[in-house]
Amino acid sequence: MGTSTVRYPAELLRHFAEQVFIQFGVSQRDAQQAADVLIAADLRAIDSHGVARLKAYCDLLREGRLNPRPQVRVIRETASTATIDGDHGLGLIVGAAANAVALDKAEQIGTGWVTVCNSNHYGIAGYYVLQAAARGMIGWSMTNSNAMVVPLGGAERKFGTNPIAFAFPAGRQPPIVIDMSTSAVPFGKIEMARRRGESIPDGWGVDGDGRPTNDPAEIVAAGALLPLGSDAQHGGHKGSCLAAVVDMLCCVLSGANWGPYVQPFALNQTMPTRQVGKGLGHFFGAMRIDCFIEPDEFRRQADAWIHEIRSTRPAPGSDGPLIPGDPEREAEAARSHSGIPLIGPVIDELRQLSAQTGVPFDPLE
Amino acid sequence: MGTSTVRYPAELLRHFAEQVFIQFGVSQRDAQQAADVLIAADLRAIDSHGVARLKAYCDLLREGRLNPRPQVRVIRETASTATIDGDHGLGLIVGAAANAVALDKAEQIGTGWVTVCNSNHYGIAGYYVLQAAARGMIGWSMTNSNAMVVPLGGAERKFGTNPIAFAFPAGRQPPIVIDMSTSAVPFGKIEMARRRGESIPDGWGVDGDGRPTNDPAEIVAAGALLPLGSDAQHGGHKGSCLAAVVDMLCCVLSGANWGPYVQPFALNQTMPTRQVGKGLGHFFGAMRIDCFIEPDEFRRQADAWIHEIRSTRPAPGSDGPLIPGDPEREAEAARSHSGIPLIGPVIDELRQLSAQTGVPFDPLE
Repeated sequence: MGTSTVRYPAELLRHFAEQVFIQFGVSQRDAQQAADVLIAADLRAIDSHGVARLKAYCDLLREGRLNPRPQVRVIRETASTATIDGDHGLGLIVGAAANAVALDKAEQIGTGWVTVCNSNHYGIAGYYVLQAAARGMIGWSMTNSNAMVVPLGGAERKFGTNPIAFAFPAGRQPPIVIDMSTSAVPFGKIEMARRRGESIPDGWGVDGDGRPTNDPAEIVAAGALLPLGSDAQHGGHKGSCLAAVVDMLCCVLSGANWGPYVQPFALNQTMPTRQVGKGLGHFFGAMRIDCFIEPDEFRRQADAWIHEIRSTRPAPGSDGPLIPGDPEREAEAARSHSGIPLIGPVIDELRQLSAQTGVPFDPLE
Repeated sequence: MGTSTVRYPAELLRHFAEQVFIQFGVSQRDAQQAADVLIAADLRAIDSHGVARLKAYCDLLREGRLNPRPQVRVIRETASTATIDGDHGLGLIVGAAANAVALDKAEQIGTGWVTVCNSNHYGIAGYYVLQAAARGMIGWSMTNSNAMVVPLGGAERKFGTNPIAFAFPAGRQPPIVIDMSTSAVPFGKIEMARRRGESIPDGWGVDGDGRPTNDPAEIVAAGALLPLGSDAQHGGHKGSCLAAVVDMLCCVLSGANWGPYVQPFALNQTMPTRQVGKGLGHFFGAMRIDCFIEPDEFRRQADAWIHEIRSTRPAPGSDGPLIPGDPEREAEAARSHSGIPLIGPVIDELRQLSAQTGVPFDPLE
């Protein structure tokens, strides 16, 4: 199935998202911040997390399930740590504010570690670590999300796709930027196969009884994704372990909902039976390199590491290993120039938002 | 193939390992420490990392490739961070000393982050995080190791199995203890299949040309392990990303050798062509829970999380999800009581060490 797309300039989409957020009661400054996270995803070709999600955020704002004017508060603090209550705000705003606290603490004392409760979906995990790299620091970012993944050996959704991100600055090379879910594949791959009527490979998901399935519709209906590693023979317990780390640092440590008690992102998804904490949780970390080693030496070795891995002899049929962050950076360069390709259903949603809010969208028509 | 074993009391093996280390010039106190790490692995049924490695450590000590009396030094330090030079000592000693610095810093200021260069293989990553949990803290531990794993898409060994460990204290429940390599399977599984003349599943490794293979002998001879996730379709790039995180935090940040430049553990393995840093690297972290949340609340929620995951409806043919750390803790309880089963080749090695050093080993004969 060929999905036709129309390309829109990033700045047009950024301005539109910003103005739409403002119409839903978000302050100018916060709307700018929120739009920046979404457009970063679109530029980096993580299409599922860009303006394709604008309507879902606005639905939650309209229904009062998100606070458009959150008072993001530090509720516990030491020199290198903080716990932040997001006041039920947009994760895109709460995440950025909390990450800034981690970065500021690291600049002041060497490292900063911030756990966050009472937030919501914060967009791409990679956005936050890029902020760290831009300030010359190592960045960490994690978030939980609503349950879509079985713990290995289980037949029920208990974990979110719980992504983990890291960034490491380099010297002449661009930073190493890692942004990975802890499931075998993202849910978007299942949804895309279902729409196309295609079967999916072994190791992606299970049906509602926890049996391996190749039918994406079964996963969407009542099944679940498998953790990274997929099965017992290939380290599927390790994906479960990583999801556990995210739940612990983002939720149990902050007082947020963990595991199956996280509220869903879209209005039409089933709500959890009860709450075990406040909202959704994140975790941010930042480390100043000069606390550990001469930054020049770090940058020189990071460059050498990148060169070493990039020059690995390729396996047959492969172009060789990728450096984490390369594909997204290349997409960003291309899309900054030639625009962001949107598929029809996303364009339709943005037009609906335009009609609802009066913010003009479609200068291309 | 049935591998017959003989059971030895843990305290007998501990005493033997300690006395053998002393014979190779290690101080009484350090020998105790080193033996404690090895016996912890044996008790926790991580047999590959217990007394089965005693001879390899002693070979390196005998050949002068390890310093029996290291002066472990903090070479850079802030309130929450340190960089430690292990003075080419046994990793079992350097790791414990560096981890203690991380724990002490966390107790004093809230978090502690320590990177280590000029060390050697430190045993099981889980040992160090158990120390954190015993002091009521969250613990992190990572180490690099000599290259056995391809970056996804590559045909050359570039990463160690680079394990990652975490521990999270709970309340009535035992702590959650995660200890996982970032390869699809540990090398021991390949070696065991080779000895048995069995083929191995898809997704474990590649031959010397980077082609998928089911022949463990090809992997041992010139091939490599695959990263966690195994292939492009199942998130194999994520295993590569995790290996990169370990290389960055343990080596580039400390000044240790990274990637393919790590010296091998056993005397008969090929040495890297050059050095890019000092020895092998580790990274330790510790976080005091009360800096983020009331410890009672954390413990209560951790217990609830464990209960939630443990009570997940099992997938067909499974007993249901395991809580990370459960199998190892159960093994420890059983083996503390009934002894540690050693296979013939390991017993032979220990007898050789006994003959070399004059330390009596075999009271069972």
